[in-house]
Amino acid sequence: MRYSEMFLPTEREVPSDAEVISHQLMLRAGMIRKLSAGIYCYLPLGYRVIRKVEQIIREEMNRAGAQEVFLPMVQPAELWQESGRWEYYGKELQRFRDRHDREYCLGPTHEEVITDLVRHELKTYRQLPKNLYQIQTKFRDEIRPRFGVMRSREFGMKDAYSFDADEEGAELSYARMFEAYKRIFSRCGLRFRPVEADSGTIGGSFSHEFMVMADSGEDGLVFCSECAYAANLEKAEVHPPEKADMSAIEEMPLTEVHTPNIRTIEEVSAFLDVTPQDIVKTMIFNADGQPVAVLIRGDEEVNEIKVKNYLGCNEIELAMDDMIEEVTGAPRGFAGAVGIRARIVADNSLLNMKNFVMGANREDYHVRNVNFGRDFSIAAFADLKIARETDACPRCRKALSFARGIEVGHVFKLGTKYSKAMGASFLDRNGKEQTMIMGCYGIGTGRTVAACIEQNNDENGIVWPMPLAPFQVIITPVNINDKALADTAERLYDSLVAKGVEALLDDRDERAGVKFKDADLIGIPIRVTIGPKKLAEGKVEIRIRDTGEVNAILLEQVEETLLGQIASKMRENVSGSHD
Amino acid sequence: MRYSEMFLPTEREVPSDAEVISHQLMLRAGMIRKLSAGIYCYLPLGYRVIRKVEQIIREEMNRAGAQEVFLPMVQPAELWQESGRWEYYGKELQRFRDRHDREYCLGPTHEEVITDLVRHELKTYRQLPKNLYQIQTKFRDEIRPRFGVMRSREFGMKDAYSFDADEEGAELSYARMFEAYKRIFSRCGLRFRPVEADSGTIGGSFSHEFMVMADSGEDGLVFCSECAYAANLEKAEVHPPEKADMSAIEEMPLTEVHTPNIRTIEEVSAFLDVTPQDIVKTMIFNADGQPVAVLIRGDEEVNEIKVKNYLGCNEIELAMDDMIEEVTGAPRGFAGAVGIRARIVADNSLLNMKNFVMGANREDYHVRNVNFGRDFSIAAFADLKIARETDACPRCRKALSFARGIEVGHVFKLGTKYSKAMGASFLDRNGKEQTMIMGCYGIGTGRTVAACIEQNNDENGIVWPMPLAPFQVIITPVNINDKALADTAERLYDSLVAKGVEALLDDRDERAGVKFKDADLIGIPIRVTIGPKKLAEGKVEIRIRDTGEVNAILLEQVEETLLGQIASKMRENVSGSHD
Repeated sequence: MRYSEMFLPTEREVPSDAEVISHQLMLRAGMIRKLSAGIYCYLPLGYRVIRKVEQIIREEMNRAGAQEVFLPMVQPAELWQESGRWEYYGKELQRFRDRHDREYCLGPTHEEVITDLVRHELKTYRQLPKNLYQIQTKFRDEIRPRFGVMRSREFGMKDAYSFDADEEGAELSYARMFEAYKRIFSRCGLRFRPVEADSGTIGGSFSHEFMVMADSGEDGLVFCSECAYAANLEKAEVHPPEKADMSAIEEMPLTEVHTPNIRTIEEVSAFLDVTPQDIVKTMIFNADGQPVAVLIRGDEEVNEIKVKNYLGCNEIELAMDDMIEEVTGAPRGFAGAVGIRARIVADNSLLNMKNFVMGANREDYHVRNVNFGRDFSIAAFADLKIARETDACPRCRKALSFARGIEVGHVFKLGTKYSKAMGASFLDRNGKEQTMIMGCYGIGTGRTVAACIEQNNDENGIVWPMPLAPFQVIITPVNINDKALADTAERLYDSLVAKGVEALLDDRDERAGVKFKDADLIGIPIRVTIGPKKLAEGKVEIRIRDTGEVNAILLEQVEETLLGQIASKMRENVSGSHD
Repeated sequence: MRYSEMFLPTEREVPSDAEVISHQLMLRAGMIRKLSAGIYCYLPLGYRVIRKVEQIIREEMNRAGAQEVFLPMVQPAELWQESGRWEYYGKELQRFRDRHDREYCLGPTHEEVITDLVRHELKTYRQLPKNLYQIQTKFRDEIRPRFGVMRSREFGMKDAYSFDADEEGAELSYARMFEAYKRIFSRCGLRFRPVEADSGTIGGSFSHEFMVMADSGEDGLVFCSECAYAANLEKAEVHPPEKADMSAIEEMPLTEVHTPNIRTIEEVSAFLDVTPQDIVKTMIFNADGQPVAVLIRGDEEVNEIKVKNYLGCNEIELAMDDMIEEVTGAPRGFAGAVGIRARIVADNSLLNMKNFVMGANREDYHVRNVNFGRDFSIAAFADLKIARETDACPRCRKALSFARGIEVGHVFKLGTKYSKAMGASFLDRNGKEQTMIMGCYGIGTGRTVAACIEQNNDENGIVWPMPLAPFQVIITPVNINDKALADTAERLYDSLVAKGVEALLDDRDERAGVKFKDADLIGIPIRVTIGPKKLAEGKVEIRIRDTGEVNAILLEQVEETLLGQIASKMRENVSGSHD
């Protein structure tokens, strides 16, 4: 491609409305332009990168035995009513009526459509397993779209759905996708980690997210410094503290103390001159309409998702004031376990506590010297806290590490949630009707590109890993009005293109400085600079974008050198991944 | 791919709701399934063919200098209001409101979006020309979707948009797309014709449709038996009849005759004992609210689009009864030119008429011996008729031929319609602000596949041309329980796949007859049959789908033979097109 002809509008200024670096650089490098809130156009440079991601995905999905389909983006309401999600999905589901007043939605995901397709066609165990995937545009009416294509309303996604006859088959399908995803993100040149994730109300026993490591990531990740354990922060388990022998500590008498307008842990701890570790917080939740009191040590935070999974409820939120007053008899800020009219569950952080402080369920009062058994009882202790640096790995008790990441892929064992609701059944070996077991597997294509930029950039712009680079090489004659330079550039360009190299020829009549700045901004891995001084010696300069390394190479060796460097940079990325 | 693993549900029965053969065969061959009215899922076999069409399109668009982008399917109302189409487009434009009550539509086409993108980025003549294309899903809420993916509501389309600084540039861009389209449809293995088409209210001076020749086509095509003239029936011009010397025929006196309840040409001709060629029909149209009387010879039909273009009006329709009565003073059926209160235009078929019959503008009366000049006058004669077999080529006067076709592509010189309305301007060489000149160019991807099937099928199923075939070769061991047959099939399959051949191995435990039927139905160009008798002689059978030709080939020669046949069938299609 010739730069002079390419639709590649670069910008020097940092766009004011772009918060994260990938969004800024995708705008500045002329990869995307915003059409409307959370809706973007991909320009030629940006779309070249998307296509590279898609190609890698296709190759690896096909290799894993998945088959490509293409499903409609406009979906009839009836299917969503069948699965129950028409009511449940909320405003992210963009609904509309057609000219005949029939209800439709824009597909935010395709479980309903694929299940409908499969239930009509797959009838016997001999036709299973099947794994069908597509690469397609989705729409979710996010309330607050942001970060460019990272969290947009319209976005590209590869989604796959597996259908198996039994649990072992479903686990094998899951494992195959897990391995395919590792290969995909490795081949994209990303540093990533698969982490255990919450499978939420989608149901099913396992779920992993593939996280690209980046400080700007929206997700917290937790991983063991020693063993292979890794999880999304919202899912991360912690090892319970070892049960200490507390028998030497005497139980002191329960004492109510007047704590006028003292509510928070900090206030209580200062007022009563105790540490937060001496206090137990009582958080009241509304779990499917029922009040639940969650007890946790004063210096810890409750992980709502763990509570939700522990209780097995559908929806959970912090209780409103009226529920708090109903179960405690006091306003917010004075809840405690003694005498509370709610189910009580306690985090493991309370395991070794005795004579602790908590709210008295009475306005402006707390109680000291509360103890289990004597003052209230709980069914069991559980892991209900947000993991933090002081916690130990749930598997091996070694130290946990924390990082930030961007979710680019998600694999889900769905079980029979959709196949049961929609009647996707088959006849097994014995002629008995069984429900198919499903998995679903997603990769955000635009998000993968953005995550790659978050991980690969410097003050001058993007630094593409070779496998996703929109061009492998940029050829920069420093002055196209110098015929010798221009001719050399043209010849090199022609011969590289003929060899299948993806080359961009910067044939613009611009100053060398401008060309160098653009080449750095759009992040082409290798720049060949053709200048008068070196050319007089029969040489050109090869500059590597990521290391800044510059070498003068004899003209007759430049092609071979470039081919070697491209090949080695492709390999480097495949082996350079974490997992 | 192994047939046993593929999601390829074929059907023996002809689906009752599929009218055209391509729709029937796409369903029966497991290429598509309907999700909702005019909304289809592509299954793996169907999507393989779509991807082949897309790949050919990409290669040829890139070769022609177009650059691939990807634009949003969800588009804000504001842009459509700017172009004026928000009001104009009607119910085919699927509109909806998002959670913040902002208005959007699903893109039925992308002139507005691309013009918006370009006006913000292209500022000087040095950045022109540009041609940007995308391959993307469109949605048009067709009132009566039908013929499967041929006329669906959701459909795949390649759309390209060119932006030029001047008319010559715009014509060059158009010519390049015209050539690219010829290459694309040739490479797809289609028999097609580019024909002149009406550019309608989109405006601009030229427009061509690319028509795949098929008797089932919705469009009529007209082409000259001698010269290169070819046009869509709705656009097809005809040569005017040579002006005869009519001086010898005396003008007879105008006579009103009572024709009680006699209205149609047939009735008048029988009642008055004249031929339809002696009668002039007077058709009253409502053209942008104004009445216009179109005169045409009794045996011809008015081409409404020609009338519309001749008048240069925006909307035209046959007048309602009230307008007819207003301008003629009589009910429908008795309109004539004499004394009518409307502008009169006459088709060239009237050129040599004298003493003709027409309506009397009085209920139950006609007039005889009407003559130009004496009884009424007209400004000019024009070509306003629907072309038919008796007409002569407008260019060379030779005979016209008629055929049916399916429109698979359309190239349009748009001019400044959108760039003017939306302010897409640039500074020319002299620093003067100018409006960009646009072209737009579309190809329906699904429709191209359906049209290919309309053209290539027999009583047993689809007969794919090699370039679009989902698989090039199907390997059919007649009995997979015969180890020698199965092993031979597996070895051949592995070695073909290793050589890059797209092979389908029918490893199903089915009777040979079932396998043969499916292979024919899904239309794979070459079938390799592996049976016990021939294998005992060290041979397999190669059967060509389109000719039915069968040859027994020695095992050691089969690979070379197949590679040669595939290559020759790819070439055959590239050169085998009409244009």
